[in-house]
Amino acid sequence: MDKKEIMQRIELLSKKKTDGMYLNDFLLTWDKSADEIEATLLTAEILRAMREHRISCRTFDSGLAISIFRDQSTRTRFSFAGACNLLGLAIQELDEEKSQIAHGETVRETANMISFMAEIIGIRDDIYLGAGHTYMKEVARAVHRGHREGVLPQRPTLVNLQCDIDHPTQTMSDALHLIHTFGGVENLKGKKIAMSWAYSPSYGKPLSVPQGIIGLMTRFGMDVVLAHPPGYNLMPEVIEVARTNSKQFDGSFAQVASMAEAFKDADIVYPKSWAPYSVMEERTRLLKAAEHDGLKALEKHCLETNRQFIDWECTEKLMQTTRQGRALYMHCLPADISGVSCERGEVASSVFERYRVPQYIQAGYKPYVIAAMIFLSKFENPAETLTQLFNRGHQRVYGSD
Amino acid sequence: MDKKEIMQRIELLSKKKTDGMYLNDFLLTWDKSADEIEATLLTAEILRAMREHRISCRTFDSGLAISIFRDQSTRTRFSFAGACNLLGLAIQELDEEKSQIAHGETVRETANMISFMAEIIGIRDDIYLGAGHTYMKEVARAVHRGHREGVLPQRPTLVNLQCDIDHPTQTMSDALHLIHTFGGVENLKGKKIAMSWAYSPSYGKPLSVPQGIIGLMTRFGMDVVLAHPPGYNLMPEVIEVARTNSKQFDGSFAQVASMAEAFKDADIVYPKSWAPYSVMEERTRLLKAAEHDGLKALEKHCLETNRQFIDWECTEKLMQTTRQGRALYMHCLPADISGVSCERGEVASSVFERYRVPQYIQAGYKPYVIAAMIFLSKFENPAETLTQLFNRGHQRVYGSD
Amino acid sequence: MDKKEIMQRIELLSKKKTDGMYLNDFLLTWDKSADEIEATLLTAEILRAMREHRISCRTFDSGLAISIFRDQSTRTRFSFAGACNLLGLAIQELDEEKSQIAHGETVRETANMISFMAEIIGIRDDIYLGAGHTYMKEVARAVHRGHREGVLPQRPTLVNLQCDIDHPTQTMSDALHLIHTFGGVENLKGKKIAMSWAYSPSYGKPLSVPQGIIGLMTRFGMDVVLAHPPGYNLMPEVIEVARTNSKQFDGSFAQVASMAEAFKDADIVYPKSWAPYSVMEERTRLLKAAEHDGLKALEKHCLETNRQFIDWECTEKLMQTTRQGRALYMHCLPADISGVSCERGEVASSVFERYRVPQYIQAGYKPYVIAAMIFLSKFENPAETLTQLFNRGHQRVYGSD
Repeated sequence: MDKKEIMQRIELLSKKKTDGMYLNDFLLTWDKSADEIEATLLTAEILRAMREHRISCRTFDSGLAISIFRDQSTRTRFSFAGACNLLGLAIQELDEEKSQIAHGETVRETANMISFMAEIIGIRDDIYLGAGHTYMKEVARAVHRGHREGVLPQRPTLVNLQCDIDHPTQTMSDALHLIHTFGGVENLKGKKIAMSWAYSPSYGKPLSVPQGIIGLMTRFGMDVVLAHPPGYNLMPEVIEVARTNSKQFDGSFAQVASMAEAFKDADIVYPKSWAPYSVMEERTRLLKAAEHDGLKALEKHCLETNRQFIDWECTEKLMQTTRQGRALYMHCLPADISGVSCERGEVASSVFERYRVPQYIQAGYKPYVIAAMIFLSKFENPAETLTQLFNRGHQRVYGSD
Repeated sequence: MDKKEIMQRIELLSKKKTDGMYLNDFLLTWDKSADEIEATLLTAEILRAMREHRISCRTFDSGLAISIFRDQSTRTRFSFAGACNLLGLAIQELDEEKSQIAHGETVRETANMISFMAEIIGIRDDIYLGAGHTYMKEVARAVHRGHREGVLPQRPTLVNLQCDIDHPTQTMSDALHLIHTFGGVENLKGKKIAMSWAYSPSYGKPLSVPQGIIGLMTRFGMDVVLAHPPGYNLMPEVIEVARTNSKQFDGSFAQVASMAEAFKDADIVYPKSWAPYSVMEERTRLLKAAEHDGLKALEKHCLETNRQFIDWECTEKLMQTTRQGRALYMHCLPADISGVSCERGEVASSVFERYRVPQYIQAGYKPYVIAAMIFLSKFENPAETLTQLFNRGHQRVYGSD
Repeated sequence: MDKKEIMQRIELLSKKKTDGMYLNDFLLTWDKSADEIEATLLTAEILRAMREHRISCRTFDSGLAISIFRDQSTRTRFSFAGACNLLGLAIQELDEEKSQIAHGETVRETANMISFMAEIIGIRDDIYLGAGHTYMKEVARAVHRGHREGVLPQRPTLVNLQCDIDHPTQTMSDALHLIHTFGGVENLKGKKIAMSWAYSPSYGKPLSVPQGIIGLMTRFGMDVVLAHPPGYNLMPEVIEVARTNSKQFDGSFAQVASMAEAFKDADIVYPKSWAPYSVMEERTRLLKAAEHDGLKALEKHCLETNRQFIDWECTEKLMQTTRQGRALYMHCLPADISGVSCERGEVASSVFERYRVPQYIQAGYKPYVIAAMIFLSKFENPAETLTQLFNRGHQRVYGSD
């Protein structure tokens, strides 16, 4: 993207209505209007292009970005770090082991205590069904109130770095990848995307990615097909979101019973393992009750159930059945690759290998998507601020290169 | 505070004699002169106001701030991070588990090895009686010597983030809270503050907060009353400090035997649990000797002793006996709230609830107090440097907001 | 060094051919040309002098520096942090416990996933023989390829923060120390340096320092003598490097059988413990196989073997035999000091004490050496960029001091 195109995107952005994002959180994509989703994608592209042109995107001279990771994370952790750093914010991680955070009233207190200098709070909490999103809302409420009551000099805004319901920084990166692959958001209309369960020799993988995908992709007028074995349902309320979206945005949403049916003539396939909703519910109950024997039994049972569907694998043969045999393969990474990371997994190694580089490129959008979410929550007139940054023309890297 | 008032405070600051703070550490408030204490409070307010006016306080283009936390910490950790970031310093934490720091000669070596690029070192070490302050002095001596010997290009200065004797970043924040609540430092004169022990179903809480409070508040001409059950003494040398201060600064210091007596007509109450001095001494001995059975026995014994004083609780009834029934309730947080975080604790939930917001505001002074301590140790002419920052007028947040 | 001298060094630097370092890694000193080694040392001195003159060396407005520490580290960790911060990069540590990094194909994936915003990757991996360097090459290959394939917008370059073969940031700091001590790199020619094994009551210390020393010091025309007990061999390929270097750079390299012989008339002595090569090989095998009993037996056996050589200690008596009894004592720290950190160790406490300050000074070069390695890998015309920084004249610390 050359500099003229950057200015054109900023011009485009200035037409989008984003006041609802200002001083607000990014928790679920379906909380956002069409304009807001498009503004986020546009801003991500603008920030990326500015960085490529060595133009500094640093809007913060100081300020903290708090991160709370309640689960292991590499990709998202580094994407969040990169995004915050790009804008000038310093990461301060809340390590709950070093801190002693309890539940209930204490969330309100802790949320305020860590936020005096905080511009942004990024949270990953995806282990317990019914917990992650609820926790994020609780933190958001606490800092909103803290700001209103004069405790916090600014309203730190939240970015959902994956919860039990949605994984917006992932799915928005996926969307940017589709836009680039198909040459524009307008070209996504009518494309068929197969979000399919796939076998993996592990258990307990979160539902947030498949849920996020059907919740977001139904907004671009796509034909979204969801496939999974019996019992591997997603949360009913997200199914409802997908259904509603597909009507509103003039696409379609269907559920089918096999990977083969989902892949048929698909333009895009997203085969990925997840745990059955009911297992996640039971697991949440057992984890809370610390019933270790029960957890072991559940894992054993679940892995046995999984094995019944070992043929839900994204093979070359299945890929042949997609549109012209050339569907775009997607995964949020890391994938369970047959013969590589496990004996039998989600995808055949030759399929994965063919799409390895495109997928890495897809992952590379995430820092900019996060930066865009932060940017739009912090600046009331994002297009104007981007123009100022562009005109200021500070170099990100000083010196002759 | 408007911009004119900021300039007035800077003017006021310029009258204070602060050369003793330059290239020096902030370990105990009673090491500091009246001018130095006032300069710290003034600088904290100026930095806070400048940030509120979006004026950048960034004086460091690069430089490290080392943190050493030998105990769990959330509030102080984030306050330190915020303060350092505000001035442009990057936090580098010394994680002793990842490092292998021994005692004796090695403190000298480690202190130097981590300080080549360090402007500031923040230390929390409050678990062992007789250890924390001693350790800080040892580190301070090591880097002072390292600077003199040409090992370190600058003298990193120390900030005590809580030791076994004092907790100056907490008590100075408390002081700022009082100044704001009562409308000026001059209004603190003659006010009665009750620093009282309170029951908590835990044991081993440090003595540094009550010690710090009686050591600092006696400097504002206040009537400081200390109350605790028999055996819950503070360190004798700090009692002596409070006594001396009260004479020098024309206030009073008294010790009484009940919370009720302390609360009578008090303007401010600070009910908080701590461990008996003798228990802390015994605990320190047992910890060093790794006598696990002895530690368990001590804990059991101590909790039983505690329970004898379960009625040392800050109740509504007791609050009624304070000045006009409206004393300001204070706590360094987190408090043990009866019926909320425990069955019976330091404070009734209705009392705590009424003061929740003021207390959060009180906690919000800490980043600025720490920033002020750093600032005064790094700039020989703090008023002049603040004026330069003010006139430079860089925005902390760039862009149209 | 005054400002005029800084400009002279920059002028000198401009004569060195450094294009091979641009967008390249710093893994082994013997991979680098004479010009490149000299350019690194020069750049380290220039950056250090600029910082001393309060001139900002900040070339990066944003950008991440990734650190991967597979072993405990204090000195190098803080040096890397200081170096990156000096140039404007923010540290993001890859904590493998929080991340789950596997081997094989996954290195490629992880290396790319953490590098979207990364300018530099610093790695310490020195535990397993044959592993550390190999891992670094694998990461380097992965990000090089990622950049070529359009995954990464920039090529993050690697700095070896200690591997199984070399420890270039340590030995280059050692070299700077020698240059300063002897008044110029040209004065190192013909000086005798004794790299000798020394007794320590521990086992399993890496071979990278002695290997790095003989591999680097043979490049300055020095007379390098290596001494160790039978069985405590270094890697044969590094012995070969030392031999070749000594011929090419007109010095000498010899191996002798006792510390006494090595110390005879030496100008510099570097007595340091390391594990026998064969033990490290066996240890690597046992660690990989998780054979705990075997590891214990090996440790026991190794410590017993060590004890046979307990008289390999750098004593005052041995120091008397060096050139005029005044050889410069060196150690990478921390040293095992007899009667201080252990009963019998590598060095007598009186010897160590006499050289304590010089050694701390030696350690202080490391942040600048690392900064120089980063700088030369990031700027195609380093002399020109340094001149720009110098002329820009931004203050590192703003305000009246």
